[in-house]
Amino acid sequence: MSGSGPSTSLVAMTANTREKTSTSGKTPVTLLGLGAMGTALAGTWLAAGHPLTVWNRTPARAAGLVAEGAKGAGSAAEAVAASTLVVVCLLDDASVGEALAEADLTGKDLVNLTTTTPDQARARADWARDRGARYLDGGIMAVPPMVGVPEAGGYVFYSGAAELFEQHRETLAVPVGTRYVGADAGHAALHDVALLSGMYGMFAGIHHAFALIRKEDIDPVEFAPLLADWLAAMAQGVHLAADQLRSGDYTKGVVSNLGMQVAGTPTFLATAEQQGVSTELLLPYFDLMARRLAEASGDEDLTGVVELLVRGE
Amino acid sequence: MSGSGPSTSLVAMTANTREKTSTSGKTPVTLLGLGAMGTALAGTWLAAGHPLTVWNRTPARAAGLVAEGAKGAGSAAEAVAASTLVVVCLLDDASVGEALAEADLTGKDLVNLTTTTPDQARARADWARDRGARYLDGGIMAVPPMVGVPEAGGYVFYSGAAELFEQHRETLAVPVGTRYVGADAGHAALHDVALLSGMYGMFAGIHHAFALIRKEDIDPVEFAPLLADWLAAMAQGVHLAADQLRSGDYTKGVVSNLGMQVAGTPTFLATAEQQGVSTELLLPYFDLMARRLAEASGDEDLTGVVELLVRGE
Ligand SMILES: NC(=O)c1ccc[n+]([C@@H]2O[C@H](COP(=O)([O-])OP(=O)(O)OC[C@H]3O[C@@H](n4cnc5c(N)ncnc54)[C@H](OP(=O)(O)O)[C@@H]3O)[C@@H](O)[C@H]2O)c1
Ligand SMILES: NC(=O)c1ccc[n+]([C@@H]2O[C@H](COP(=O)([O-])OP(=O)(O)OC[C@H]3O[C@@H](n4cnc5c(N)ncnc54)[C@H](OP(=O)(O)O)[C@@H]3O)[C@@H](O)[C@H]2O)c1
Repeated sequence: MSGSGPSTSLVAMTANTREKTSTSGKTPVTLLGLGAMGTALAGTWLAAGHPLTVWNRTPARAAGLVAEGAKGAGSAAEAVAASTLVVVCLLDDASVGEALAEADLTGKDLVNLTTTTPDQARARADWARDRGARYLDGGIMAVPPMVGVPEAGGYVFYSGAAELFEQHRETLAVPVGTRYVGADAGHAALHDVALLSGMYGMFAGIHHAFALIRKEDIDPVEFAPLLADWLAAMAQGVHLAADQLRSGDYTKGVVSNLGMQVAGTPTFLATAEQQGVSTELLLPYFDLMARRLAEASGDEDLTGVVELLVRGE
Repeated sequence: MSGSGPSTSLVAMTANTREKTSTSGKTPVTLLGLGAMGTALAGTWLAAGHPLTVWNRTPARAAGLVAEGAKGAGSAAEAVAASTLVVVCLLDDASVGEALAEADLTGKDLVNLTTTTPDQARARADWARDRGARYLDGGIMAVPPMVGVPEAGGYVFYSGAAELFEQHRETLAVPVGTRYVGADAGHAALHDVALLSGMYGMFAGIHHAFALIRKEDIDPVEFAPLLADWLAAMAQGVHLAADQLRSGDYTKGVVSNLGMQVAGTPTFLATAEQQGVSTELLLPYFDLMARRLAEASGDEDLTGVVELLVRGE
């Protein structure tokens, strides 16, 4: 990207800064993948004045961005050659391997925002290192409409070498916020998957709750704020749970103990039955609570079930 | 309670107001049940100057309150006789039937805060009506430490006759906030159970998330705010879900569609496997998502799973 544009003469063009500078003084970015997420990311770098080279397997998806000033590359290898900082946002880990198969990664800073498992991220970090690149992994905690909208609160978890993150922090912070979670390349993906797993549990609870009121004369729109506020308040319980997990003392600060809560489960199951609602989403957690009670003190909090979930504890 | 105390002469003592007035001008309250919750409730009425009569099956639990000015009744029937407003907070529905078996409920306003199913609440309302009492059912959305602490945000759902609720609203609002949810006596319990069911789903998600990071060098106390903030943000999705449920259009306002989310589930299951964590809490909801995708459009939101949970839809 450097060397293009009308006012390159204003910018010092030493070999060292070639890749770091541009007409705008902003770090050039190459982005592979223009799906819903990639397209949203791309728009923010363009708007912020970063020289941007884009590539997508289906070339037509690049047209809009090229019209707005991005450089369209004919191949992934060509796109990679254009910038030191190469951001990848593709469907899955396999598509990253395919897209980069022919690219020369020597001296590149590869930032992979593709959703993967922690082990895939670690393997991809090794793979990149073997090809001469530095590697950062990212886990996107946002949906496309949140990209470029700071007040929406979206961010990306990053893990890998701290100095690499620091070097690109400003550029990476253009689309959404950034949270660095350590040197282990797998930890961004792990944080991502852990938070989303927590969310699916909450969604299961929410959908069960809506099912319970479905046949009643209760407006879901009036019910929603009650449920949202309750869940937001109860989500604060994670701080106590974290304390208990760190200390290993599950009886610390308990307000509703395991024994009392297990005793209450028949009311939840009976209510589901009365309302004609399946208990399939409730049973596994209630079963876990009962198994914990069978082996531990009824004075514990619910947090002790974590030990039953982890093999070999 | 009326007639006791030094300044009863200041208070009009007509037959009509006998039960409504006292030295303090506050409505007399009878409370049956001095477990953890009943004891907390009682303390707030005493502190607010309500003449309070208490009874507990195990009499020793009344001693502290009596020392603070409550009147201890020798039997539940005697306690019921002392005030028009009779609040019950016992273990379960069966204990309510047992405790009130010998009491004369004629002309009483019975407010039952005992946790029950909606059908038990409805049956208890009929039972009370047959005995000449008016009936309000309550579902407590608080734990004892939140009682008497307005900023803690606890409240009680009430359902039953609106005018009965209005008449006692002020007295009932002394321990925690109040939310009236309709004339159907079962609706307070239904709201209570629905919110708590939602919470158990969220707890399942939270405990799975903590299990995922358990064997890693990740401090649960540093992880906790990330998880809490994410869940609090995602809990706001209930408003969109409610809108979709009301309209029946599950494709309205979708940001991450069902098809994409079902495609992502293997990453969550594989991550659990890699981290040595059981998938038992994830599978039922993922299975439900897949079943919905098999019968509906991949462009839908997740909300359509509610229809699969309700029998006969
Ligand atoms: N969208 C979200 O809400 C969201 C949120 C958080 C994280 N993410 C993650 O962000 C990544 C991208 O998501 P998205 O929403 O942009 O997905 P998408 O709209 O489905 O786009 C997928 C992209 O991957 C490309 N691709 C697929 N297989 C390929 C292959 N074998 N070789 C080369 N390119 C290939 C597609 O190219 P074609 O155009 O040629 O098909 C397209 O650019 C995913 O890992 C996703 O999990 C998305
Ligand atoms: N604690 C909470 O966090 C909480 C939160 C929301 C709702 N609630 C609900 O509030 C109600 C009371 O809870 P709690 O925490 O106070 O329970 P608790 O501490 O276990 O007390 C239970 C109470 O019920 C009485 N009882 C039990 N069986 C009885 C019977 N057959 N006849 C007469 N009395 C009987 C007990 O009397 P003895 O003293 O003689 O055993 C005691 O007063 C329950 O329905 C509970 O679900 C509690």
